[in-house]
Amino acid sequence: MTTQYTIVLIAYVSESRIAAEDDFWSRATAVIELTDAFPEEALLGLADFSHVEVLFLFHQVAEEKIVIANRHPRNNPDWPAVGVFAQRAKSRPNRLGSTICRIISVSDRRLTVAKLDAIDGTPVIDLKTRDDSVSASSTVTQPQWTHELMRSYWSSHSDK
Amino acid sequence: MTTQYTIVLIAYVSESRIAAEDDFWSRATAVIELTDAFPEEALLGLADFSHVEVLFLFHQVAEEKIVIANRHPRNNPDWPAVGVFAQRAKSRPNRLGSTICRIISVSDRRLTVAKLDAIDGTPVIDLKTRDDSVSASSTVTQPQWTHELMRSYWSSHSDK
Repeated sequence: MTTQYTIVLIAYVSESRIAAEDDFWSRATAVIELTDAFPEEALLGLADFSHVEVLFLFHQVAEEKIVIANRHPRNNPDWPAVGVFAQRAKSRPNRLGSTICRIISVSDRRLTVAKLDAIDGTPVIDLKTRDDSVSASSTVTQPQWTHELMRSYWSSHSDK
Repeated sequence: MTTQYTIVLIAYVSESRIAAEDDFWSRATAVIELTDAFPEEALLGLADFSHVEVLFLFHQVAEEKIVIANRHPRNNPDWPAVGVFAQRAKSRPNRLGSTICRIISVSDRRLTVAKLDAIDGTPVIDLKTRDDSVSASSTVTQPQWTHELMRSYWSSHSDK
Protein backbone atom coordinates (compact mmCIF):
# COMPACT_ATOMS: atom_id res chain seq x y z
CA MET A 1 0.00 0.00 0.00
CA THR A 2 1.28 3.45 -0.86
CA THR A 3 2.03 5.42 2.25
CA GLN A 4 3.17 8.65 0.65
CA TYR A 5 1.48 11.26 -1.49
CA THR A 6 2.84 14.21 -3.41
CA ILE A 7 1.11 17.56 -3.26
CA VAL A 8 1.72 20.77 -5.14
CA LEU A 9 2.17 24.16 -3.53
CA ILE A 10 -0.62 26.38 -4.79
CA ALA A 11 0.28 29.73 -3.22
CA TYR A 12 2.68 31.54 -0.91
CA VAL A 13 2.19 33.87 2.04
CA SER A 14 3.66 37.38 2.02
CA GLU A 15 3.24 40.65 3.92
CA SER A 16 2.89 38.66 7.12
CA ARG A 17 5.67 38.51 9.69
CA ILE A 18 9.17 37.13 9.27
CA ALA A 19 9.93 35.23 12.47
CA ALA A 20 8.32 31.99 13.60
CA GLU A 21 7.13 32.63 17.15
CA ASP A 22 4.39 30.82 19.01
CA ASP A 23 2.37 33.87 20.04
CA PHE A 24 1.44 37.43 19.18
CA TRP A 25 -0.20 36.99 15.80
CA SER A 26 -1.82 40.39 16.01
CA ARG A 27 -0.63 41.69 12.64
CA ALA A 28 -3.67 42.95 10.82
CA THR A 29 -3.35 41.19 7.49
CA ALA A 30 -1.37 38.84 5.31
CA VAL A 31 -1.39 38.17 1.58
CA ILE A 32 -1.79 34.79 -0.09
CA GLU A 33 -0.74 34.83 -3.72
CA LEU A 34 -1.45 31.96 -6.10
CA THR A 35 1.44 30.57 -8.11
CA ASP A 36 1.54 31.00 -11.87
CA ALA A 37 0.06 27.52 -12.24
CA PHE A 38 -3.36 28.89 -11.31
CA PRO A 39 -5.49 31.41 -13.14
CA GLU A 40 -6.87 34.46 -11.41
CA GLU A 41 -10.35 32.98 -11.83
CA ALA A 42 -9.48 30.20 -9.36
CA LEU A 43 -10.40 32.80 -6.69
CA LEU A 44 -13.58 33.99 -8.42
CA GLY A 45 -16.48 34.17 -5.99
CA LEU A 46 -14.34 33.93 -2.86
CA ALA A 47 -15.09 37.56 -1.97
CA ASP A 48 -18.71 36.53 -1.31
CA PHE A 49 -17.57 34.60 1.76
CA SER A 50 -16.54 36.15 5.04
CA HIS A 51 -13.98 33.44 5.84
CA VAL A 52 -11.58 31.08 4.09
CA GLU A 53 -9.87 27.98 5.42
CA VAL A 54 -6.17 28.08 4.66
CA LEU A 55 -4.17 24.84 4.63
CA PHE A 56 -0.44 25.45 4.71
CA LEU A 57 2.93 23.96 5.60
CA PHE A 58 5.02 24.81 8.66
CA HIS A 59 7.94 24.71 6.25
CA GLN A 60 10.61 25.80 8.72
CA VAL A 61 10.06 22.89 11.11
CA ALA A 62 13.04 20.53 10.83
CA GLU A 63 12.35 16.82 10.39
CA GLU A 64 14.13 15.99 13.65
CA LYS A 65 11.86 18.35 15.61
CA ILE A 66 8.76 16.34 14.80
CA VAL A 67 7.45 14.54 17.87
CA ILE A 68 4.93 11.75 17.54
CA ALA A 69 4.88 10.57 21.17
CA ASN A 70 3.07 12.52 23.85
CA ARG A 71 4.53 15.70 25.26
CA HIS A 72 3.49 18.76 27.24
CA PRO A 73 2.27 21.42 24.80
CA ARG A 74 4.99 24.08 24.52
CA ASN A 75 6.89 21.96 27.07
CA ASN A 76 4.80 23.53 29.81
CA PRO A 77 4.58 21.02 32.69
CA ASP A 78 1.41 22.75 33.94
CA TRP A 79 -0.43 21.34 30.94
CA PRO A 80 -0.99 17.62 30.45
CA ALA A 81 1.31 15.58 28.23
CA VAL A 82 -0.80 14.73 25.20
CA GLY A 83 -0.30 12.95 21.89
CA VAL A 84 0.64 14.87 18.77
CA PHE A 85 -2.88 14.43 17.36
CA ALA A 86 -4.42 15.87 20.53
CA GLN A 87 -2.80 19.24 19.92
CA ARG A 88 -2.18 21.70 17.10
CA ALA A 89 1.59 22.07 17.62
CA LYS A 90 3.55 22.82 14.47
CA SER A 91 6.15 20.06 15.08
CA ARG A 92 3.81 17.38 13.76
CA PRO A 93 3.81 14.71 11.06
CA ASN A 94 3.41 16.36 7.64
CA ARG A 95 3.83 19.83 9.21
CA LEU A 96 0.33 20.84 8.15
CA GLY A 97 -1.29 24.01 9.41
CA SER A 98 -4.96 24.91 9.11
CA THR A 99 -6.53 28.23 10.03
CA ILE A 100 -9.82 29.86 9.21
CA CYS A 101 -9.16 33.49 8.27
CA ARG A 102 -11.35 36.47 7.64
CA ILE A 103 -11.28 37.61 4.03
CA ILE A 104 -10.31 41.26 3.55
CA SER A 105 -10.09 41.43 -0.23
CA VAL A 106 -9.54 39.42 -3.39
CA SER A 107 -7.71 40.97 -6.30
CA ASP A 108 -6.19 39.14 -9.28
CA ARG A 109 -4.28 36.17 -7.85
CA ARG A 110 -3.97 37.84 -4.45
CA LEU A 111 -6.10 37.15 -1.43
CA THR A 112 -5.71 39.41 1.61
CA VAL A 113 -6.81 37.93 4.92
CA ALA A 114 -6.85 38.71 8.63
CA LYS A 115 -5.69 36.34 11.35
CA LEU A 116 -3.41 34.08 9.37
CA ASP A 117 -0.78 32.56 11.68
CA ALA A 118 1.77 31.82 8.97
CA ILE A 119 5.05 33.60 8.31
CA ASP A 120 6.30 35.14 5.09
CA GLY A 121 7.19 32.52 2.52
CA THR A 122 4.84 29.88 3.91
CA PRO A 123 3.67 27.50 1.16
CA VAL A 124 -0.10 27.10 0.93
CA ILE A 125 -1.60 23.80 -0.24
CA ASP A 126 -5.32 24.53 -0.33
CA LEU A 127 -7.93 27.23 0.14
CA LYS A 128 -11.48 26.22 0.97
CA THR A 129 -14.51 28.25 1.77
CA ARG A 130 -15.49 28.06 5.39
CA ASP A 131 -18.86 26.36 5.65
CA ASP A 132 -21.00 26.30 8.75
CA SER A 133 -22.17 22.77 8.16
CA VAL A 134 -18.69 21.21 8.38
CA SER A 135 -17.23 23.49 11.02
CA ALA A 136 -19.02 22.46 14.20
CA SER A 137 -19.75 26.04 15.11
CA SER A 138 -21.76 25.06 18.16
CA THR A 139 -21.50 22.54 20.98
CA VAL A 140 -17.71 22.58 20.99
CA THR A 141 -15.84 21.80 24.17
CA GLN A 142 -12.08 21.77 24.65
CA PRO A 143 -9.90 21.36 27.74
CA GLN A 144 -8.99 24.37 29.84
CA TRP A 145 -5.28 24.11 29.00
CA THR A 146 -6.00 24.91 25.36
CA HIS A 147 -7.60 28.21 26.31
CA GLU A 148 -4.56 29.03 28.45
CA LEU A 149 -2.21 28.09 25.62
CA MET A 150 -3.98 30.40 23.18
CA ARG A 151 -4.25 33.33 25.58
CA SER A 152 -1.59 35.48 23.88
CA TYR A 153 -1.86 33.92 20.45
CA TRP A 154 -3.81 36.64 18.70
CA SER A 155 -2.62 39.55 20.84
CA SER A 156 0.27 41.94 20.32
CA HIS A 157 3.43 41.92 22.44
CA SER A 158 2.26 45.08 24.15
CA ASP A 159 -0.85 43.35 25.47
CA LYS A 160 1.40 41.07 27.54
CA MET B 1 11.85 26.92 -5.91
CA THR B 2 10.40 23.57 -4.94
CA THR B 3 6.78 23.33 -5.92
CA GLN B 4 6.04 19.85 -4.59
CA TYR B 5 5.97 18.32 -1.16
CA THR B 6 5.66 14.73 -0.02
CA ILE B 7 3.36 13.81 2.82
CA VAL B 8 2.82 10.54 4.66
CA LEU B 9 -0.54 8.92 5.21
CA ILE B 10 -1.08 8.71 8.96
CA ALA B 11 -4.38 6.81 9.16
CA TYR B 12 -7.21 5.26 7.15
CA VAL B 13 -10.99 5.51 7.39
CA SER B 14 -13.11 2.40 7.90
CA GLU B 15 -16.65 1.53 8.94
CA SER B 16 -17.90 4.47 6.92
CA ARG B 17 -19.69 4.03 3.61
CA ILE B 18 -18.34 2.48 0.43
CA ALA B 19 -19.59 4.68 -2.40
CA ALA B 20 -18.50 8.24 -3.15
CA GLU B 21 -21.71 10.25 -3.44
CA ASP B 22 -22.11 13.97 -2.94
CA ASP B 23 -24.92 13.84 -0.39
CA PHE B 24 -26.55 11.83 2.35
CA TRP B 25 -23.70 11.56 4.86
CA SER B 26 -26.08 10.57 7.62
CA ARG B 27 -24.23 7.42 8.73
CA ALA B 28 -23.76 7.69 12.44
CA THR B 29 -20.06 7.02 12.80
CA ALA B 30 -16.79 6.20 11.08
CA VAL B 31 -13.49 4.89 12.37
CA ILE B 32 -10.08 6.45 11.81
CA GLU B 33 -7.24 4.07 12.55
CA LEU B 34 -3.62 5.18 12.76
CA THR B 35 -1.06 3.27 10.71
CA ASP B 36 1.60 1.17 12.44
CA ALA B 37 4.01 4.10 12.12
CA PHE B 38 2.27 5.84 15.00
CA PRO B 39 2.02 4.77 18.62
CA GLU B 40 -1.31 4.55 20.39
CA GLU B 41 -0.20 7.46 22.58
CA ALA B 42 -0.34 9.79 19.56
CA LEU B 43 -4.08 10.03 20.34
CA LEU B 44 -3.62 10.48 24.10
CA GLY B 45 -5.75 13.34 25.39
CA LEU B 46 -7.93 13.61 22.31
CA ALA B 47 -10.95 12.27 24.19
CA ASP B 48 -10.96 15.48 26.25
CA PHE B 49 -12.08 17.40 23.17
CA SER B 50 -15.56 17.32 21.69
CA HIS B 51 -14.35 17.76 18.10
CA VAL B 52 -11.41 16.89 15.88
CA GLU B 53 -10.40 18.36 12.55
CA VAL B 54 -9.72 15.59 10.04
CA LEU B 55 -7.57 16.33 6.98
CA PHE B 56 -7.85 13.63 4.35
CA LEU B 57 -7.46 12.86 0.65
CA PHE B 58 -10.27 12.43 -1.86
CA HIS B 59 -8.21 9.52 -3.14
CA GLN B 60 -10.70 8.32 -5.77
CA VAL B 61 -10.74 11.59 -7.71
CA ALA B 62 -8.92 11.04 -11.00
CA GLU B 63 -6.26 13.56 -12.01
CA GLU B 64 -8.18 14.48 -15.17
CA LYS B 65 -11.29 15.40 -13.14
CA ILE B 66 -9.51 18.20 -11.33
CA VAL B 67 -10.81 21.57 -12.46
CA ILE B 68 -8.92 24.74 -11.67
CA ALA B 69 -10.99 27.19 -13.71
CA ASN B 70 -14.37 28.39 -12.53
CA ARG B 71 -17.42 26.17 -12.78
CA HIS B 72 -20.92 25.86 -11.39
CA PRO B 73 -20.78 23.83 -8.15
CA ARG B 74 -22.12 20.35 -8.90
CA ASN B 75 -22.66 21.66 -12.44
CA ASN B 76 -25.87 23.28 -11.27
CA PRO B 77 -26.52 26.32 -13.47
CA ASP B 78 -28.73 27.83 -10.75
CA TRP B 79 -25.59 28.47 -8.71
CA PRO B 80 -22.88 30.89 -9.80
CA ALA B 81 -19.78 29.66 -11.62
CA VAL B 82 -16.98 30.10 -9.08
CA GLY B 83 -13.28 29.33 -8.90
CA VAL B 84 -12.04 26.09 -7.41
CA PHE B 85 -10.81 27.93 -4.30
CA ALA B 86 -14.25 29.49 -3.77
CA GLN B 87 -15.83 26.10 -3.19
CA ARG B 88 -15.18 22.87 -1.33
CA ALA B 89 -15.63 20.49 -4.29
CA LYS B 90 -13.59 17.31 -4.13
CA SER B 91 -12.20 17.66 -7.68
CA ARG B 92 -9.60 20.18 -6.56
CA PRO B 93 -5.83 20.58 -6.67
CA ASN B 94 -4.24 18.21 -4.14
CA ARG B 95 -7.62 16.53 -3.51
CA LEU B 96 -7.57 17.62 0.13
CA GLY B 97 -10.62 17.26 2.35
CA SER B 98 -11.12 18.87 5.73
CA THR B 99 -13.99 18.26 8.11
CA ILE B 100 -14.53 18.93 11.78
CA CYS B 101 -16.06 15.83 13.35
CA ARG B 102 -17.54 15.07 16.72
CA ILE B 103 -15.45 12.62 18.74
CA ILE B 104 -17.35 9.52 19.88
CA SER B 105 -14.51 7.51 21.40
CA VAL B 106 -10.78 6.93 21.37
CA SER B 107 -9.41 3.46 21.92
CA ASP B 108 -5.88 2.25 21.16
CA ARG B 109 -5.04 3.52 17.68
CA ARG B 110 -8.70 3.91 16.77
CA LEU B 111 -10.71 7.09 16.81
CA THR B 112 -14.47 6.86 16.28
CA VAL B 113 -16.16 10.03 15.04
CA ALA B 114 -19.53 11.32 13.86
CA LYS B 115 -20.11 13.33 10.68
CA LEU B 116 -17.04 12.36 8.71
CA ASP B 117 -17.77 12.71 4.99
CA ALA B 118 -15.08 10.29 3.81
CA ILE B 119 -15.55 6.81 2.36
CA ASP B 120 -13.97 3.57 3.50
CA GLY B 121 -10.28 3.42 2.67
CA THR B 122 -9.81 7.19 2.67
CA PRO B 123 -6.22 8.12 3.63
CA VAL B 124 -5.95 10.63 6.46
CA ILE B 125 -3.03 13.06 6.56
CA ASP B 126 -3.58 14.92 9.84
CA LEU B 127 -5.76 15.11 12.92
CA LYS B 128 -5.93 18.37 14.85
CA THR B 129 -7.95 19.40 17.81
CA ARG B 130 -10.68 21.83 16.94
CA ASP B 131 -9.93 25.13 18.64
CA ASP B 132 -12.41 27.98 18.96
CA SER B 133 -9.76 30.63 18.47
CA VAL B 134 -8.80 29.49 14.97
CA SER B 135 -12.20 28.40 13.76
CA ALA B 136 -14.13 31.65 13.32
CA SER B 137 -17.14 30.32 15.14
CA SER B 138 -18.96 33.63 14.96
CA THR B 139 -19.53 36.36 12.40
CA VAL B 140 -19.41 33.95 9.48
CA THR B 141 -21.29 34.73 6.32
CA GLN B 142 -21.49 32.61 3.19
CA PRO B 143 -23.53 32.92 0.00
CA GLN B 144 -27.01 31.48 -0.18
CA TRP B 145 -26.03 28.89 -2.82
CA THR B 146 -23.75 27.14 -0.35
CA HIS B 147 -26.64 26.57 2.03
CA GLU B 148 -28.69 25.14 -0.83
CA LEU B 149 -25.79 22.93 -1.90
CA MET B 150 -25.43 21.47 1.59
CA ARG B 151 -29.15 20.96 2.15
CA SER B 152 -29.08 17.15 1.82
CA TYR B 153 -25.45 16.68 2.75
CA TRP B 154 -25.89 15.40 6.27
CA SER B 155 -29.32 13.86 5.80
CA SER B 156 -30.31 10.32 4.92
CA HIS B 157 -31.83 9.35 1.56
CA SER B 158 -35.18 8.91 3.25
CA ASP B 159 -35.25 12.58 4.27
CA LYS B 160 -35.33 13.52 0.60
